[in-house]
Amino acid sequence: MTDQPALRTLKEGAAFNGFLLAQEAAFKTSAKGSEYLELKLADASGDLKAFLWDVRAIEGDLDKVQADAFLKVKGQAAAFNGRLQLRLDKVRFALDEEVGDLARFFATSGRPLADMTAELDAAVARTRDPWLRRLLELLLVEDAGLRAAFCRAPAAKSLHHAFLGGLLEHTLSVLGMAERACEHYPDLNRDLVAAGVLLHDLGKTAELTYQRSFAYSDEGNLIGHIAMEAEWISRAAARIPDFPENLRMQILHIVLSHHGRLEYGSPVLPKTPEALLVHYLDDLDGKLEAMFRSIREDAGEGAWTPFSRTMDRMVYKVRWPKA
Amino acid sequence: MTDQPALRTLKEGAAFNGFLLAQEAAFKTSAKGSEYLELKLADASGDLKAFLWDVRAIEGDLDKVQADAFLKVKGQAAAFNGRLQLRLDKVRFALDEEVGDLARFFATSGRPLADMTAELDAAVARTRDPWLRRLLELLLVEDAGLRAAFCRAPAAKSLHHAFLGGLLEHTLSVLGMAERACEHYPDLNRDLVAAGVLLHDLGKTAELTYQRSFAYSDEGNLIGHIAMEAEWISRAAARIPDFPENLRMQILHIVLSHHGRLEYGSPVLPKTPEALLVHYLDDLDGKLEAMFRSIREDAGEGAWTPFSRTMDRMVYKVRWPKA
Amino acid sequence: MTDQPALRTLKEGAAFNGFLLAQEAAFKTSAKGSEYLELKLADASGDLKAFLWDVRAIEGDLDKVQADAFLKVKGQAAAFNGRLQLRLDKVRFALDEEVGDLARFFATSGRPLADMTAELDAAVARTRDPWLRRLLELLLVEDAGLRAAFCRAPAAKSLHHAFLGGLLEHTLSVLGMAERACEHYPDLNRDLVAAGVLLHDLGKTAELTYQRSFAYSDEGNLIGHIAMEAEWISRAAARIPDFPENLRMQILHIVLSHHGRLEYGSPVLPKTPEALLVHYLDDLDGKLEAMFRSIREDAGEGAWTPFSRTMDRMVYKVRWPKA
Amino acid sequence: MTDQPALRTLKEGAAFNGFLLAQEAAFKTSAKGSEYLELKLADASGDLKAFLWDVRAIEGDLDKVQADAFLKVKGQAAAFNGRLQLRLDKVRFALDEEVGDLARFFATSGRPLADMTAELDAAVARTRDPWLRRLLELLLVEDAGLRAAFCRAPAAKSLHHAFLGGLLEHTLSVLGMAERACEHYPDLNRDLVAAGVLLHDLGKTAELTYQRSFAYSDEGNLIGHIAMEAEWISRAAARIPDFPENLRMQILHIVLSHHGRLEYGSPVLPKTPEALLVHYLDDLDGKLEAMFRSIREDAGEGAWTPFSRTMDRMVYKVRWPKA
Amino acid sequence: MTDQPALRTLKEGAAFNGFLLAQEAAFKTSAKGSEYLELKLADASGDLKAFLWDVRAIEGDLDKVQADAFLKVKGQAAAFNGRLQLRLDKVRFALDEEVGDLARFFATSGRPLADMTAELDAAVARTRDPWLRRLLELLLVEDAGLRAAFCRAPAAKSLHHAFLGGLLEHTLSVLGMAERACEHYPDLNRDLVAAGVLLHDLGKTAELTYQRSFAYSDEGNLIGHIAMEAEWISRAAARIPDFPENLRMQILHIVLSHHGRLEYGSPVLPKTPEALLVHYLDDLDGKLEAMFRSIREDAGEGAWTPFSRTMDRMVYKVRWPKA
Amino acid sequence: MTDQPALRTLKEGAAFNGFLLAQEAAFKTSAKGSEYLELKLADASGDLKAFLWDVRAIEGDLDKVQADAFLKVKGQAAAFNGRLQLRLDKVRFALDEEVGDLARFFATSGRPLADMTAELDAAVARTRDPWLRRLLELLLVEDAGLRAAFCRAPAAKSLHHAFLGGLLEHTLSVLGMAERACEHYPDLNRDLVAAGVLLHDLGKTAELTYQRSFAYSDEGNLIGHIAMEAEWISRAAARIPDFPENLRMQILHIVLSHHGRLEYGSPVLPKTPEALLVHYLDDLDGKLEAMFRSIREDAGEGAWTPFSRTMDRMVYKVRWPKA
Repeated sequence: MTDQPALRTLKEGAAFNGFLLAQEAAFKTSAKGSEYLELKLADASGDLKAFLWDVRAIEGDLDKVQADAFLKVKGQAAAFNGRLQLRLDKVRFALDEEVGDLARFFATSGRPLADMTAELDAAVARTRDPWLRRLLELLLVEDAGLRAAFCRAPAAKSLHHAFLGGLLEHTLSVLGMAERACEHYPDLNRDLVAAGVLLHDLGKTAELTYQRSFAYSDEGNLIGHIAMEAEWISRAAARIPDFPENLRMQILHIVLSHHGRLEYGSPVLPKTPEALLVHYLDDLDGKLEAMFRSIREDAGEGAWTPFSRTMDRMVYKVRWPKA
Repeated sequence: MTDQPALRTLKEGAAFNGFLLAQEAAFKTSAKGSEYLELKLADASGDLKAFLWDVRAIEGDLDKVQADAFLKVKGQAAAFNGRLQLRLDKVRFALDEEVGDLARFFATSGRPLADMTAELDAAVARTRDPWLRRLLELLLVEDAGLRAAFCRAPAAKSLHHAFLGGLLEHTLSVLGMAERACEHYPDLNRDLVAAGVLLHDLGKTAELTYQRSFAYSDEGNLIGHIAMEAEWISRAAARIPDFPENLRMQILHIVLSHHGRLEYGSPVLPKTPEALLVHYLDDLDGKLEAMFRSIREDAGEGAWTPFSRTMDRMVYKVRWPKA
Repeated sequence: MTDQPALRTLKEGAAFNGFLLAQEAAFKTSAKGSEYLELKLADASGDLKAFLWDVRAIEGDLDKVQADAFLKVKGQAAAFNGRLQLRLDKVRFALDEEVGDLARFFATSGRPLADMTAELDAAVARTRDPWLRRLLELLLVEDAGLRAAFCRAPAAKSLHHAFLGGLLEHTLSVLGMAERACEHYPDLNRDLVAAGVLLHDLGKTAELTYQRSFAYSDEGNLIGHIAMEAEWISRAAARIPDFPENLRMQILHIVLSHHGRLEYGSPVLPKTPEALLVHYLDDLDGKLEAMFRSIREDAGEGAWTPFSRTMDRMVYKVRWPKA
Repeated sequence: MTDQPALRTLKEGAAFNGFLLAQEAAFKTSAKGSEYLELKLADASGDLKAFLWDVRAIEGDLDKVQADAFLKVKGQAAAFNGRLQLRLDKVRFALDEEVGDLARFFATSGRPLADMTAELDAAVARTRDPWLRRLLELLLVEDAGLRAAFCRAPAAKSLHHAFLGGLLEHTLSVLGMAERACEHYPDLNRDLVAAGVLLHDLGKTAELTYQRSFAYSDEGNLIGHIAMEAEWISRAAARIPDFPENLRMQILHIVLSHHGRLEYGSPVLPKTPEALLVHYLDDLDGKLEAMFRSIREDAGEGAWTPFSRTMDRMVYKVRWPKA
Repeated sequence: MTDQPALRTLKEGAAFNGFLLAQEAAFKTSAKGSEYLELKLADASGDLKAFLWDVRAIEGDLDKVQADAFLKVKGQAAAFNGRLQLRLDKVRFALDEEVGDLARFFATSGRPLADMTAELDAAVARTRDPWLRRLLELLLVEDAGLRAAFCRAPAAKSLHHAFLGGLLEHTLSVLGMAERACEHYPDLNRDLVAAGVLLHDLGKTAELTYQRSFAYSDEGNLIGHIAMEAEWISRAAARIPDFPENLRMQILHIVLSHHGRLEYGSPVLPKTPEALLVHYLDDLDGKLEAMFRSIREDAGEGAWTPFSRTMDRMVYKVRWPKA
Repeated sequence: MTDQPALRTLKEGAAFNGFLLAQEAAFKTSAKGSEYLELKLADASGDLKAFLWDVRAIEGDLDKVQADAFLKVKGQAAAFNGRLQLRLDKVRFALDEEVGDLARFFATSGRPLADMTAELDAAVARTRDPWLRRLLELLLVEDAGLRAAFCRAPAAKSLHHAFLGGLLEHTLSVLGMAERACEHYPDLNRDLVAAGVLLHDLGKTAELTYQRSFAYSDEGNLIGHIAMEAEWISRAAARIPDFPENLRMQILHIVLSHHGRLEYGSPVLPKTPEALLVHYLDDLDGKLEAMFRSIREDAGEGAWTPFSRTMDRMVYKVRWPKA
């Protein structure tokens, strides 16, 4: 895929020949009864609508041409009603092996991964409490599979930080605010707060699938990330000899209560200052990211973004300039 | 304590000399400024108000005469305004060693423990699914400490089955209904249902303390019984070689969702028929027990029990006789 | 209609000539401005999309070709994008007289009607309380019109048991569970419970219309089934000399409170054990039926049914096999 | 009782000898262990705390000296801490026969009953629609028992118009506003509105008991006034030959929906303009009466009434004077 | 535009040549890939769908042919599937200057403006309280710009009275009912009520924009009409020497609390009888107008309007005739 | 008052003669009918229960001895049941003039006022945006009366920072966090955030009275602090020539939306990133202060504070020590 052009750079009339991810795929019929294929095709740079007017031009198995599949397509960019689309001549299902690095098909965190992992490791190393540091090392450093997933997962299906690396980016952003808060409110236990932040969404690595599309896994739907990470933490603590029971309760409490309300899926309310703080800063970071993104991404005219069901409001796009 | 009379059998004028549990204890002052001690004293048969009008008659440390302590008291039963009370001459703190079998001070399930454990073991043995049977054996039969706690704990602090053995009695009652339901709805998987029922409240053994009074433990307040038992089940499943991952999810799902709604503390909604059934039958059994108890225990005149905040209603006491 | 093939049995290319119920009907226009007719046609075995590309082929009055009308159609089955549809050559409105037994056009309970009425009569006969048995006889046996409607009505417009005979099937299923519950909780009055179950949804015979489509009647929308059946019961009780006032209140209370919460349309909360039980078992039976049906009917891939707004969740389709 | 002074007119030091209603009665014990009787005694003019310091001064059965009983008492008015109370020398239970007209012990509507019944009859007579007029005559004029109860019942236990005659006073006040509204909104059907208003709370005659205290009857708690009056209306309509079915639905709909929301106990929402109007004006009249009464009755200093749980707010007592 | 026909009067086959407001505009593509323009065009009498099959027939800038623009169009009325539509031959963007009086393109109050302003002035003049009269004069008579806006604005974007002059029509209707209520409840202060009604929605003149379409202004979205009008009233009162502080609070309180509940956007609950009344009558008037309009405008068969999300119900259209 | 001892330093048996604020005052009667006076007396260091057993020992007007009055009292500290109380010999009402600096009777912020005003002025001076700086100067620096009130008012009646100077302390604490947040999220406009924080609760200076007790003023109850401060800001902006309209809207929006939800009294939702941030940090600061204070002030045994209705939970007091 290395030499195929990024979708965002495509100009009207340009030919395209390469691999793309089908985010949507539907066989439709025209009023005259002829069948055509309508696709939404994506790489990491963006997505385009695409049409194949003659379905006989599909090579191989038609049933494999479906959402979340990689396709090899050939066609050209055409402007239609002011927007670019792809008019395809050929379409076929593509194997993962052909496609190469899957990350090229997904939006990815704007922060370099190396920076983020360095920041993560520094935060772990900065933890003075020996029990908590050991716990973090076991889960975030030494468990290579979990660490890899933690670096790659999105933070949510669509609410906020919905891109590869989003979970780590969100976690580090909350941590940054949390460490500032610990300076501001000196009665807070920084290490407990930091451990709570670093672990609060760890279960999302298994709650979400993010190979082709962002979706909930079976385990995500049946168990949920909060119960999953609570168990992982308990199990890790059990592997550390003499891990203090009170500390185990306090860190589990932060994680279990971080949604802040029972109706948001936390089985207990935050009952310690540290748990209260983690809840607020987690919620704030997600909502701010969603709001800034909706402002950035909305190309429409007017002072307002479209109504967001997630935020239950429109966002005012006019930014008062800094003096 | 063997030879002291049960409180419920006490007649007016009778002397009393023995050990009782102080459910409430307050030093009060009369308008004239003299101090007196007002107690609520209990054994397994019931409770009585008690008064010590001269606090100098307290032997030993006054500070130890407090709620949830065992006391050695001497006095006599007196009728006051139609109700019996104890007028005390002597009061002192009592050590656990003196007191003997603590169970004599608490309300206890009306069902003999031996019957209930036999019924529990039979239900485990009746489980045909080998994985689920093994899981139940590990948690409910072979872990002696957990089994003992499961047989002794109340089902709730006050809502329903709030007596020693109440957790097991409630669990077996739900199981009885659940097995009838599996006959009625043949698509249900009986073993999955039964395992869900048997494990759904297991965490209450650690959520509640029930040595002197029924209260939430620290872990109960910070973690909650649902997250605790979920972890125990996961850990037990991990000890069974090749325990199927799908089955682990399904049983965990029943346990995590059994409160039926997020706002009632379940982090996920019931999404399988078995989980839905366990939620309904658990809820029904608790509410029916509370309703029948409130009818039985209300000695007042009139057709209605007092307003119950737990049930958010009064209960109609008039029973239409069976034909 | 006897010799026309059932829709579900139709094969690609087969001709079809017969009567069908139009569940949906819309005149649409192609981009070129030509009009066509798009239908959803049904018999009891299922439904198919159908197209008539030349509206001049409609015989008689075009305005009568609308939703909820019977049509005589001629055409053939064609596969389009993997699904069967009907390509029509002729369409005309059909009179009820031509069509014959309407039941052939609707989904119907899987249980034979004779079995269900026998079970109903046995349940009435099993009632030992003479007042309640007489009440049930008046309403469910001797009032031929009401009995016929009770045997034919669906239980709901779409939530659960939405097929002919569904009301009776649901009622008997709740009764089956309720009788099991009365064995399990011996303090319950079986006859009161059974009468409550048998009468709890009787008003749905007038709340819903189910001649062509399932919908709310005017009376259903303005009065609701609960107030309707309450009045019927009161009126029937008034016809039984010396019917005890307390019993009248208790049975009315079960019926009025069976939705369990004011916001679900019950004007009073369940305040007797019998009323509480009927509410729980009614709710459970409806939700279980909806859940099992959604699992059975979902032909899609993947482990989950589509999101159901009724249930506010997706349902997990993977069934752990019985051992 | 004719010659005993009204409680409100009693001066400090005055002797009292007569019949009073015990709204509250409690045997209490002083710190020294002596028993005394604390009462709240009332006649129609108001209520006073009363104390009998020597319970041996009670004549006859002590158990009959309880809330909701009439008592014959002898004592004198004494000021205590700025408020008047009764210090009693003698107390005994009194029979209804001794007491005479019970209405003298209750707060009663400030409007003369004759005026109100004349207004009621005029409103019925003003009804031009023959069906509705006949329905109103049957229920409010010809049914002597129901008419008597309608003239005597309070409108609520405590929320608003909680005095004898309050139901009729409230009904007529809503009717006055409703007739003004029908002039203002000419599309409204005045007769339908008026019939809806006159019947909307009729069931309160049986929902509430108001012999000694205002309370819910068993039927009130189990059935509720809405379902009761709906049945009465249906039954009365059935007695009028050829009463139009559509009109029966429309009038029932007003009555059933007049609480405006399901969670307030209406099984259906108002779906006609007339039903909407009756709901709003009924609600407004009750709330205005409660607000004006709380302003009038609050003798405390300051600009605010105490917090009212019924209204969920304090009321501002400062009235801007009319110009 | 004077001589162009009103859309509602257009007959099939008639030619049309004139200015219309585009309420909707979309460039679409047929299955064969050819582009066409689909419009919803309106004048004050109604609206029609319109199609331009050849987009090359657009004169001038295509980008200006969009929603909320005035267009000059030429074409003819054609019946399609029983409904009229416009088949266009020419379309071009039109300048405001060409178009003339914008009011001809919008639905407008059925009441003549002169009548309404006379009624408004009479209501102000009828105010006896000198402070309140002066306040009303400042805001509603002497501030020419505000008065003009008050006469022209709609009362809401879509909920009720959504037409030019709707704000004034709604205000006067509420005032009519409020004056009747002040006669009925004599303790109410009429002038305070009248001033509260006249000012309660004044901020909507700035909350809504109503040049081309009815929408929220930026200030409407960020501040809301309640906070805007509260400030205007405060500022006007400050210009009246010695305006009484208590009166300022009482009138502001009515305005701030008139939505009746915090969750409906009032920052305080109604705490005076006048504020309570204004809330109820405002709410009632809006809901009645919406209900009557939905009955009037619904041309469909059947007894029910379509489900209205605003009212969360269907409305019963059958009106029982006045006798 | 300078030389009277602080209540908190009083030892058992010590005499006390000085001025105290009566937070509560009640005349009560003993069972024997003798009257006594029960008080809760406070200075800035704390409060004590106090008793005067012979009410004849009150000098002057008894009616003035009431809650929120200053009293001159003489008596001595006595231990009763482990807690100190005052046994009084003399009590009389005291004039404000006698009492001196009222601040000595109230809990006061632990931060020196001079530090806080310097921090406030620095924050204003740090504002680079000339419009916002001018707005802050007008309201917080140049309006001497408002500035004085801002420095003295509590932040709330009881929820959090309920002490003199609490409003300023809370405002500065939120500001500290907000400036850290602006460093962390660089897209935020620091000056807009800072102005929003500094003004968000300014209206509490008039919403609350805090001369003797902390309570809501009439204006506080009728208007609320949000609407008050919104008007003040608008009025101040109107005094600044050419103040940009968009900036006025943005700052008003932050203030109006800072409660975050309509049901918490904000008439609009936060729709800009700056408004969202101010809401979260304001809420967090108040809740953290309440939580830390409840931990600090709870002298009881056990790991949990009493249940706080404000926070709807108990708080876990066990602090995991910093490493």
